[in-house]
Amino acid sequence: MVFTPETWPIAANMLSFGNTTPDGTPLLDAPAATWRAQLDEVAGLGFTYVDPTDAWVSIGELSAPRFAEFVDAVAASGLAVASISTTRRSVVDATDGERFCEIGHTIIDRAPELGAGIVNFGFMQALTPAQARAGWFWLEDGHVDPPDDSPVRDLAVERIQELARHGAEVGVEISLEMYEDTFLGTPDRAIRFLKDVDMPNVGLNPDLGNLVRLHREIEDIPTMFAKVLPHTNFWHIKNYLRDIDPATGAYATAPVPLVMGIVNYRRHIREAIAAGFTGPFVCEHYGSDSLGVAAINREYIRDVLRSVPRETS
Amino acid sequence: MVFTPETWPIAANMLSFGNTTPDGTPLLDAPAATWRAQLDEVAGLGFTYVDPTDAWVSIGELSAPRFAEFVDAVAASGLAVASISTTRRSVVDATDGERFCEIGHTIIDRAPELGAGIVNFGFMQALTPAQARAGWFWLEDGHVDPPDDSPVRDLAVERIQELARHGAEVGVEISLEMYEDTFLGTPDRAIRFLKDVDMPNVGLNPDLGNLVRLHREIEDIPTMFAKVLPHTNFWHIKNYLRDIDPATGAYATAPVPLVMGIVNYRRHIREAIAAGFTGPFVCEHYGSDSLGVAAINREYIRDVLRSVPRETS
Amino acid sequence: MVFTPETWPIAANMLSFGNTTPDGTPLLDAPAATWRAQLDEVAGLGFTYVDPTDAWVSIGELSAPRFAEFVDAVAASGLAVASISTTRRSVVDATDGERFCEIGHTIIDRAPELGAGIVNFGFMQALTPAQARAGWFWLEDGHVDPPDDSPVRDLAVERIQELARHGAEVGVEISLEMYEDTFLGTPDRAIRFLKDVDMPNVGLNPDLGNLVRLHREIEDIPTMFAKVLPHTNFWHIKNYLRDIDPATGAYATAPVPLVMGIVNYRRHIREAIAAGFTGPFVCEHYGSDSLGVAAINREYIRDVLRSVPRETS
Repeated sequence: MVFTPETWPIAANMLSFGNTTPDGTPLLDAPAATWRAQLDEVAGLGFTYVDPTDAWVSIGELSAPRFAEFVDAVAASGLAVASISTTRRSVVDATDGERFCEIGHTIIDRAPELGAGIVNFGFMQALTPAQARAGWFWLEDGHVDPPDDSPVRDLAVERIQELARHGAEVGVEISLEMYEDTFLGTPDRAIRFLKDVDMPNVGLNPDLGNLVRLHREIEDIPTMFAKVLPHTNFWHIKNYLRDIDPATGAYATAPVPLVMGIVNYRRHIREAIAAGFTGPFVCEHYGSDSLGVAAINREYIRDVLRSVPRETS
Repeated sequence: MVFTPETWPIAANMLSFGNTTPDGTPLLDAPAATWRAQLDEVAGLGFTYVDPTDAWVSIGELSAPRFAEFVDAVAASGLAVASISTTRRSVVDATDGERFCEIGHTIIDRAPELGAGIVNFGFMQALTPAQARAGWFWLEDGHVDPPDDSPVRDLAVERIQELARHGAEVGVEISLEMYEDTFLGTPDRAIRFLKDVDMPNVGLNPDLGNLVRLHREIEDIPTMFAKVLPHTNFWHIKNYLRDIDPATGAYATAPVPLVMGIVNYRRHIREAIAAGFTGPFVCEHYGSDSLGVAAINREYIRDVLRSVPRETS
Repeated sequence: MVFTPETWPIAANMLSFGNTTPDGTPLLDAPAATWRAQLDEVAGLGFTYVDPTDAWVSIGELSAPRFAEFVDAVAASGLAVASISTTRRSVVDATDGERFCEIGHTIIDRAPELGAGIVNFGFMQALTPAQARAGWFWLEDGHVDPPDDSPVRDLAVERIQELARHGAEVGVEISLEMYEDTFLGTPDRAIRFLKDVDMPNVGLNPDLGNLVRLHREIEDIPTMFAKVLPHTNFWHIKNYLRDIDPATGAYATAPVPLVMGIVNYRRHIREAIAAGFTGPFVCEHYGSDSLGVAAINREYIRDVLRSVPRETS
């Protein structure tokens, strides 16, 4: 399936709505009208696609009638769905991994009805209390996956294979999100994991914004993209300013629109297209007016797509 | 009075012009043509409203004929005035408080002729020498008001009541600006002060940009807005990036356009409207091209206002 | 020659393309089609002018037939050339100064054929290994010119005079780029250098972005511009956020679009025009999507030029 710059799926992530209503009701239990109002706000910003992440409404946990309501709400908003992202629900979570895996299967089952051709999995886990208290959660250390020779990783590979086999049956791809300190924490680890999974409907989500915002040394950004873009089938895209003060060692990073952060997305989107990328983009942004920045980023991505010489697009 | 997103008063603050001409003449003594050229520059950026702050031309200190010239200059520029802000002129300033209070009365008297329905007062005082030397004045400690059980605060409450009574006579509201280390330095202190004033034509100016730029710990931003938005009748609006380096404790903050700073103004403007806010916005911005950023912010605010579902606007 | 805001030369710098192709071939040896594709990308972003800096394709080192190909490639892209910038090729470089001076002469000879009326020289030298490794090269100390009473500076003045005499013969101006720790490292040093050169076709390039990004104390920005704008004949223009944490002494700076960095370019461009500036602007930007930001900056500069009252433009 080939998209034009105008039709390419570029979705809003619903993260900024949280997972409860202002009065504390889980969105999972909220009336469809609540979902609809939030979807309408997104559509009002010019979005044509939405990624219904489980950090908003966990569709794998809705009853069948409630899922039908959900499908109706999305349809009524006029938004299309190309992808469904899961987050902080590692399928090898020590306590809930099996349950998260089950929910993943339900999401894969339900993806086609929403029109989604791809489901995103990652190995980051619930925020630690220190992360939840921090100004930005990435300023504190979070969950760390064991080394790559650990049996936990073998289980992770197996469960992703199992999800991918299910995906293949219903025409759904799997994308694996890069995230610090997980099995997909660096390009090399991510590619190794992908190779161990070794299934044609599995690729990477090179969400390197997760890395460039960290207050620690990182690998060279263009080199990281050069490694992972050929394996990319989905893209959580976000950007950050990044500076380090040599005298004190203090880092400073902050979320900003794609055009102005440290990652040169004009270059890397063009490289991705040249490498054959045809997957959906999902605009994520933390803090600030996430939706407003996501809308700016959507237009930026379309502009960059328009700039790609025709023969390679 | 109800505004549409297109007519809502969103003013430029004139702060960036300073209070002297390039050759050092106080703007107070400058010919009306100088004021006019600056107002024209603002109008040229698409502004329809201006806030003639006393940090630019202190209209409470103009002679009657000069004030008439001022009114003419504003009219000739095509700009409307919805509000007049005073700044760093605490009515309980140890030296000049009484005089500042007098000037405040003159401003209230003159507000209707300019079309202004609201006058803003705050308790920040003149910059200290260290603040004046600093890269950004907020990086150094400034004036600190005494605790809330101080007789100075009693006097502050009295003087604001006196100004508010005067305002009520001429149809002018009073807004009290939140500013660190003053009687309005936190949401709780601000609400307490407002309750002690206890007059229907007095409200808060939730200028939380003053707080989020500080290199110190701050309260949770959404919680602060939840407290003060129901009491808001005027809004100095500005945004900042904000980061902290955990290893060194170094903060980094910087003024940026509304859409991309740490405060989610899309959310908080919508909450304010839902809570009944109908007052003017004033776009402030320090450093950089303040006017250019203010113009960007004006369009941003209109966009957010347009996004508010009709039944609540 | 007088420009309108629409026709004023505002060029893209080609720095972001580097000086090699992805496979490592020097762009100097690349086929003209490679140059053309990069020029087309720039033109596609709405640029009408390009500055063919020697950090991209060093036109002073092309053979005559290759230079003819280069001229054709530029013409075919539809881009005009108003200026040619050299960078990190000090004419008093201990090893290569004489050679760089020779190349400078060739550039001056070739400038008219490209339509360029100005060639930019500076005294910064090759990046040190530490600079090359740093997150941003300006975070590490680079080349330091000797004091102004050094014979090396006498030689520098002589060589610039020699280049300027050559320029005068072919109708080309020389601009001297301000850069930290060089003979043009501060406004005072820059003006002193210019006075010692003392030739009518030589002026300054007030590239103060080079200074404001540094993690060290800097002079007051408006004061610096007041000194150098009257001597300005060319302008590498870029902006940065800039903050310092008083408790730790940590600086944080980051490249951002012109409108939002610490330098108030609206003010300083208007001052430059009032002081008689009629030279080209070149939009530089490091890191991130340099070209995308440059395109945003180009439109910003045109907007500011449009805002200049007619009598002074």
